[in-house]
Amino acid sequence: MTKTAPEKAKKQSFEKVDRSAFKNKHLIGIEPLSADEINIILDLADYYADRLDEREFKPDILKNQIVLTLFFEDSTRTRTSFEMAAKRLGADVVNLDLRTSSVNKGESLLDTIQTLDSMLRPDAIIVRHSEYGAPQFISSIVDCPVINAGDSWHEHPTQALLDALTIRRRLGSIKGKTIAICGDIAHSRVATSNMILLTRLGANVRIVAPPALMPQKFPAEGIKAFDNMKDGLAGCDIVMMLRNQMERMQAGLIKSEAEFFEEFGLTKDKLAYANDGALVMHPGPMNRGVEIADDVADDKNQSLILEQVRNGVPTRMAVMDILMKGRFS
Amino acid sequence: MTKTAPEKAKKQSFEKVDRSAFKNKHLIGIEPLSADEINIILDLADYYADRLDEREFKPDILKNQIVLTLFFEDSTRTRTSFEMAAKRLGADVVNLDLRTSSVNKGESLLDTIQTLDSMLRPDAIIVRHSEYGAPQFISSIVDCPVINAGDSWHEHPTQALLDALTIRRRLGSIKGKTIAICGDIAHSRVATSNMILLTRLGANVRIVAPPALMPQKFPAEGIKAFDNMKDGLAGCDIVMMLRNQMERMQAGLIKSEAEFFEEFGLTKDKLAYANDGALVMHPGPMNRGVEIADDVADDKNQSLILEQVRNGVPTRMAVMDILMKGRFS
Amino acid sequence: MTKTAPEKAKKQSFEKVDRSAFKNKHLIGIEPLSADEINIILDLADYYADRLDEREFKPDILKNQIVLTLFFEDSTRTRTSFEMAAKRLGADVVNLDLRTSSVNKGESLLDTIQTLDSMLRPDAIIVRHSEYGAPQFISSIVDCPVINAGDSWHEHPTQALLDALTIRRRLGSIKGKTIAICGDIAHSRVATSNMILLTRLGANVRIVAPPALMPQKFPAEGIKAFDNMKDGLAGCDIVMMLRNQMERMQAGLIKSEAEFFEEFGLTKDKLAYANDGALVMHPGPMNRGVEIADDVADDKNQSLILEQVRNGVPTRMAVMDILMKGRFS
Repeated sequence: MTKTAPEKAKKQSFEKVDRSAFKNKHLIGIEPLSADEINIILDLADYYADRLDEREFKPDILKNQIVLTLFFEDSTRTRTSFEMAAKRLGADVVNLDLRTSSVNKGESLLDTIQTLDSMLRPDAIIVRHSEYGAPQFISSIVDCPVINAGDSWHEHPTQALLDALTIRRRLGSIKGKTIAICGDIAHSRVATSNMILLTRLGANVRIVAPPALMPQKFPAEGIKAFDNMKDGLAGCDIVMMLRNQMERMQAGLIKSEAEFFEEFGLTKDKLAYANDGALVMHPGPMNRGVEIADDVADDKNQSLILEQVRNGVPTRMAVMDILMKGRFS
Repeated sequence: MTKTAPEKAKKQSFEKVDRSAFKNKHLIGIEPLSADEINIILDLADYYADRLDEREFKPDILKNQIVLTLFFEDSTRTRTSFEMAAKRLGADVVNLDLRTSSVNKGESLLDTIQTLDSMLRPDAIIVRHSEYGAPQFISSIVDCPVINAGDSWHEHPTQALLDALTIRRRLGSIKGKTIAICGDIAHSRVATSNMILLTRLGANVRIVAPPALMPQKFPAEGIKAFDNMKDGLAGCDIVMMLRNQMERMQAGLIKSEAEFFEEFGLTKDKLAYANDGALVMHPGPMNRGVEIADDVADDKNQSLILEQVRNGVPTRMAVMDILMKGRFS
Repeated sequence: MTKTAPEKAKKQSFEKVDRSAFKNKHLIGIEPLSADEINIILDLADYYADRLDEREFKPDILKNQIVLTLFFEDSTRTRTSFEMAAKRLGADVVNLDLRTSSVNKGESLLDTIQTLDSMLRPDAIIVRHSEYGAPQFISSIVDCPVINAGDSWHEHPTQALLDALTIRRRLGSIKGKTIAICGDIAHSRVATSNMILLTRLGANVRIVAPPALMPQKFPAEGIKAFDNMKDGLAGCDIVMMLRNQMERMQAGLIKSEAEFFEEFGLTKDKLAYANDGALVMHPGPMNRGVEIADDVADDKNQSLILEQVRNGVPTRMAVMDILMKGRFS
């Protein structure tokens, strides 16, 4: 079991958050982060989330800095969330959609990155890539901080951080909570990052999946595996559903959508196995009627799904603040 | 016949335009607008058009506000025109090209909109969509104003407004003018919005089209239908051609391009049926040699086509000013 | 032999550069430029290159001006380099990717340009197009300066200018240097612009290529042609490799990649034919193992490749400064 730091229940103001305890230069994954480092991000993200609706609140802490988003895979919403966060902090943003660019002309990733780094001299690079380890590789080439916006089945750390922020803002803390992550786990970078983060902050983490979607090993200790929703959800405070990757179905790994929904789709009936008032999460985009029922997704009291989306920008503001702000001061 | 307001011939200054009489919260179409509301937009658009070439004129009335453009169909020029208008008013613009995004991964329009609304908290949404009623639907979900940039065969209100501005700036008023809308009418959102607007402001509106492209019913009263250019153009002050949708031809609805041009293409000869000095309009992009001849399109005196393009930005500035400015003041 | 101006070895400050001697209104190619005009650009680019890393250095000389990038062919890095340069000078940038736009709906280039010019009223247009002469044609339609970012096999003037800046900054001057341009010459706009520029500034220019890739005639006088690297590189100060266009290979013009590399790929062994410490250039993106070996490309002392990339932004700043700044003052 990894060590867990005491959570900071009381609010930190912007200036009071102690960024100096954050030792990582990049955000490649949750794995390299200590509980203390995770909490520094969450404290600051919490502050930014409080002030998100104040339109005139635009701290210029990244003025004249350049944030480069490099998306080798398409993800409009993740890219846009990073872009909004960077602009809110006063940075200039250059968005490069590299799905159709020189990389397709046979150029190596090394040359692409060295070229862009020489040309743009960015102060941070946000990268999404279909290959495991690409953000780590990029961080070994450039001088600036690299933030992983999702690599292959590996990690998607800002998604786990925004999920943690969402839980913390609703329940006060993560420690001691029982959280089930359900569905298409095996190849989910969201699930991996969440398993590590939630365990590290002291939650009791469960995995609920059919055998074909159950990972062979877990990225953190103490995780309990279940093959059915009834047992898996009993006693849970949070039920976190995942997007069902339709490709898997086509590959015959799981049965029809209807059968999957029958066994693992989150309905009001299945949610009733969890604690009273248990909260529902989903990283989006949702397949309604496959992994989640409409009335569960849209429940005003129990669904945190739109809160998760809302917390993306302040979480990414906090990450950029911590990694970038100190570089020039 | 819908009521017509007296047109305001004299120029209104920026501050003098009485925005309070504009009651609609959104711009879904021309249909919901009164003649007074149309004139408020045109008065303000006229003011912005006068000052368009003053580069230092950048009224910051939308400072710190976010305009989100959601284009589910491609239209570089319409999107760019809205973007320029928003930036000119000081707003921040987020452009999302949703042709290739999550919507293609099976996510519902409801979820896409709720997600973007939670993430970006926009102050206005500009939407183009291939489905009839999508802007209306979106306006029922979000809190901010929604502006229709074209939905299916339904409406394209800012095109009709910029067309009206173009006529008004050249001829002083729209009331009493005789205007023929010609060609591929049946499925044209531009024609629909124009028929409503021009009728509402007191023009005599005619439709000239072959039977296969003639709509079954008209969206406004008093419109006269013609099946040939000679009769249709006689006595006209304005001849408004439409872009011929080539798909229709492929479907066999009309004959060859050459035959269409022969019967309905606007040539100098056919234009001579109209009043002396009659003006020519086209929403673009043009199919030269199909619906319009080169010498007509490029006539320096009679063609208003580049004026229409030029009036797009000030018209959209006026719409955003009216719908957005009052929200926070 | 075209005349050569004396090069200005001593640094010019920003204010001291005499822009008035620059007579061209556009930058369609290197061909129309005198040696003096080339040197004006290089003097100013040199100044901007010196200050590139000062993030707070953002001269607002193009404030409220609009730079329109029109890319009819994809080139993320060239477009981004122009965009960075324009923003660094305070301009607003509108990027239009026209590969998928109205031009594909059959609209003429004339109408596309007239429409965008009426709508946006840009202060400069940057254009890349697959057709020879498109930038020239556009410059005949619009009032503002047009900058060619590459047209067909014709010219790519800013690439040649940034290459010249790179040589000048390393070697002090271009005059009298011996420079071999090697590989896929026949259809290279980069090679054409470089042959003209380097000859005009007094370099001894050589071409090294297999017969199938050798152009039928040269765009400047005094160029020497070689069909093998040993003779071509003997006595050279600079070896400039080109990107091998794979299409050519598929067309059977040259043999396999391995055979091409064997004969013309730049290895340490072949580089040894040139002068001691000879410098290596490549416009990117590189095909490693086809036209250049890894250890040559990555040599910290002799490879200028990342310097070339770095010099793109200041070179384009200088071009925009010179062409645009005087328009409104």
